[in-house]
Amino acid sequence: MHEVYTHPNSQAQFRRAAKVIPSGVYGHLGPAEGCFIPVEAFPLFSDHAKGSYFWDVDGHRYIDYMCAFGPNILGYNDPDVDEAARKQREKGDCTTSPSTVMIDFAELLVDTVKSADWAFFAKNGNDVTTLAIMASRAYTHRKKIVFFKGYYHGVAPWTQKIDYAGVIEEDVANNIYIPWNDAAALERVFAEHKDEIAAVIAQPYMHGNFMDNELPAKGFWQKVRKLCTENDTVLVVDDVRAGFRLDMAGSDHYFGFEADLICFCKAIANGYNVSALCGKEFMKNTISSMSYTGSYWMSAVPFAAGIACIEKMKKLNCPQILIDKGGQLKRGLVKAAADYGYDLRVTGVPSLFYMRLADDPTLMLHQAWIAECVKRGVFFTNHHNHFINAALTDADIAETVEIAREAFEAIQKK
Amino acid sequence: MHEVYTHPNSQAQFRRAAKVIPSGVYGHLGPAEGCFIPVEAFPLFSDHAKGSYFWDVDGHRYIDYMCAFGPNILGYNDPDVDEAARKQREKGDCTTSPSTVMIDFAELLVDTVKSADWAFFAKNGNDVTTLAIMASRAYTHRKKIVFFKGYYHGVAPWTQKIDYAGVIEEDVANNIYIPWNDAAALERVFAEHKDEIAAVIAQPYMHGNFMDNELPAKGFWQKVRKLCTENDTVLVVDDVRAGFRLDMAGSDHYFGFEADLICFCKAIANGYNVSALCGKEFMKNTISSMSYTGSYWMSAVPFAAGIACIEKMKKLNCPQILIDKGGQLKRGLVKAAADYGYDLRVTGVPSLFYMRLADDPTLMLHQAWIAECVKRGVFFTNHHNHFINAALTDADIAETVEIAREAFEAIQKK
Repeated sequence: MHEVYTHPNSQAQFRRAAKVIPSGVYGHLGPAEGCFIPVEAFPLFSDHAKGSYFWDVDGHRYIDYMCAFGPNILGYNDPDVDEAARKQREKGDCTTSPSTVMIDFAELLVDTVKSADWAFFAKNGNDVTTLAIMASRAYTHRKKIVFFKGYYHGVAPWTQKIDYAGVIEEDVANNIYIPWNDAAALERVFAEHKDEIAAVIAQPYMHGNFMDNELPAKGFWQKVRKLCTENDTVLVVDDVRAGFRLDMAGSDHYFGFEADLICFCKAIANGYNVSALCGKEFMKNTISSMSYTGSYWMSAVPFAAGIACIEKMKKLNCPQILIDKGGQLKRGLVKAAADYGYDLRVTGVPSLFYMRLADDPTLMLHQAWIAECVKRGVFFTNHHNHFINAALTDADIAETVEIAREAFEAIQKK
Repeated sequence: MHEVYTHPNSQAQFRRAAKVIPSGVYGHLGPAEGCFIPVEAFPLFSDHAKGSYFWDVDGHRYIDYMCAFGPNILGYNDPDVDEAARKQREKGDCTTSPSTVMIDFAELLVDTVKSADWAFFAKNGNDVTTLAIMASRAYTHRKKIVFFKGYYHGVAPWTQKIDYAGVIEEDVANNIYIPWNDAAALERVFAEHKDEIAAVIAQPYMHGNFMDNELPAKGFWQKVRKLCTENDTVLVVDDVRAGFRLDMAGSDHYFGFEADLICFCKAIANGYNVSALCGKEFMKNTISSMSYTGSYWMSAVPFAAGIACIEKMKKLNCPQILIDKGGQLKRGLVKAAADYGYDLRVTGVPSLFYMRLADDPTLMLHQAWIAECVKRGVFFTNHHNHFINAALTDADIAETVEIAREAFEAIQKK
């Protein structure tokens, strides 16, 4: 049986944080987002990290299935990536003229990603989804954007909902929302808004929060691609979350189509801070015509890290490894659940699997089980997809399944 | 006499870049922005950097007065900042639970910046100016924003102009533009838009491009502060460019007033990638209520670098050093110009001085002089303020003035 963790230091640090930081820890790493329920089960601060583990400020180790919500793909502090970054840092990072390592990185992305004829670098996923939308509007001289319900494309005002704090009607006035996998709905909005739709933006499959993740229906993407082409609308794939966990050539390639613009962040450099918009040749001049930059966007260290990360991922065939490891974990967890009489639904591509216990309308059972896992050193979270990294071992997976069993036993006793 | 540089490798690398990156090098580090005229005078790629210098890919050294457009404040590869960053990297950077170094950094900013009761971290200046505007709208339940003409607040759609590529009317429908230093105009717009103005956003003084930089008129900021308070409007100071080059306590403090929200980036961590929004207690709950985050926003390495940078800047009294060095350079350059019969106008605070040759309506004379400086190893740029860093020596300044003289001589001969 595994030790059951408590988090007195995490809690104390959180009280300290809340005095000087709004929400204490904000966004998806904090308790306010609704993934860390009950919050006392979760460590809120890490002390150090290595490979597939992090250690919290109370000295506990976790097998980490959130991977910093995506960036950790090769394992924390991957020696090859860190060494490439260290070498570049000695030469220079954020300088008045950029390093040619930026060109090397762009060339590597163009070689790797099927729909990439060029690359434009920034810092956040949000920077590149926003650039994609602005570029689509500039290219088409149209305003409207089609979204699939359940989407997440960052935090810029145009991505948010009208009832979110700080959002005004003008921010979302040109947004059209349709259901995922509903090609007829897309056909309808194209007919209703003839020559008005600048872009369709979508994640490669529906991996939204608080919902079973849903793969594209057969022929769905091909139909979307066809409709966009027929209507001179730019097809934007937001591969920030799934990128390099499905296919090194892009998640559009995995599903058998080609995006016009594709957004990367998270796993592109194993946690070093860089994002990229890639796209087709016909969009390149439009991007060149735009006023779009940031203070750190050409920092050389993240480029060097990104090159090392992508080269290593290609060498390993990383997406397949992650899908295989995720599949192995999924089978173990589903069987563990069944052995205790629970029906665990695991959806999405296994490298970024989503979990839900069936027959649990209040979600309390699921949250209780996740909490018991976390308290024993398996970092899962509620109502959000998980992430697999390449440093995860068979022993880690076996231990995870063992802890999942202890957690099912614990909730059965309650 | 100094060697006159040429840039065959820079030019070759740029041709390589242009194939795979829109514009080749975009934004303020690239030739497309209009600061690098004539472009052949400028190195477009750096090989390495140290202290106040960078070396280009043709092997030339430059005394660098752009400082990566701001981030380099202590000197490139400052040993204290780099060592703090290295130590943190060994522990962890971008992890599932953040490091407590985030709290340390927030506490340090609250101790350092007069108008900071809290800090919220992101990656770009643009992230925090956008958060400031959204928070102002959320807090006031109003839409309109007042800008001062000549402003720069990032690249989000709301900051751009209607004639810029990708911008639609809705993005800027609530923007009101008034002249800098015109308190009467501000009073007028408050009267005309009673209870409609969410925020006034401004840089601490007018350091726009293509214009002599202009300090606040006596009593201007106090009047702006008073009008904002009377109208329940949030006063946002964008200290991204000037931050820590005027006053460690914030540029609002330097000019004798207090902002409600203040935005930092660039010099906050000597080039490590982090930005911060700081603000008054009354805005904290509003920030907490917002949906605003990003993949890398809690990376620990930039926080550790930021702490080391701010502690060292405080110890050195960095802003005063930079103002003194800038003043020394300014006197040398103005005298050099006068000795050759030119009237060099140097405006703004000397730590981020702006230069213009008078009696030069086509700007050609100024551009020719800047080009001759750059070709001899002094990296100035056209029509944009410059930046001083603490590693700049008296010998560097003396050499700069000497090169400026050679450059005046060169343009006189033409």
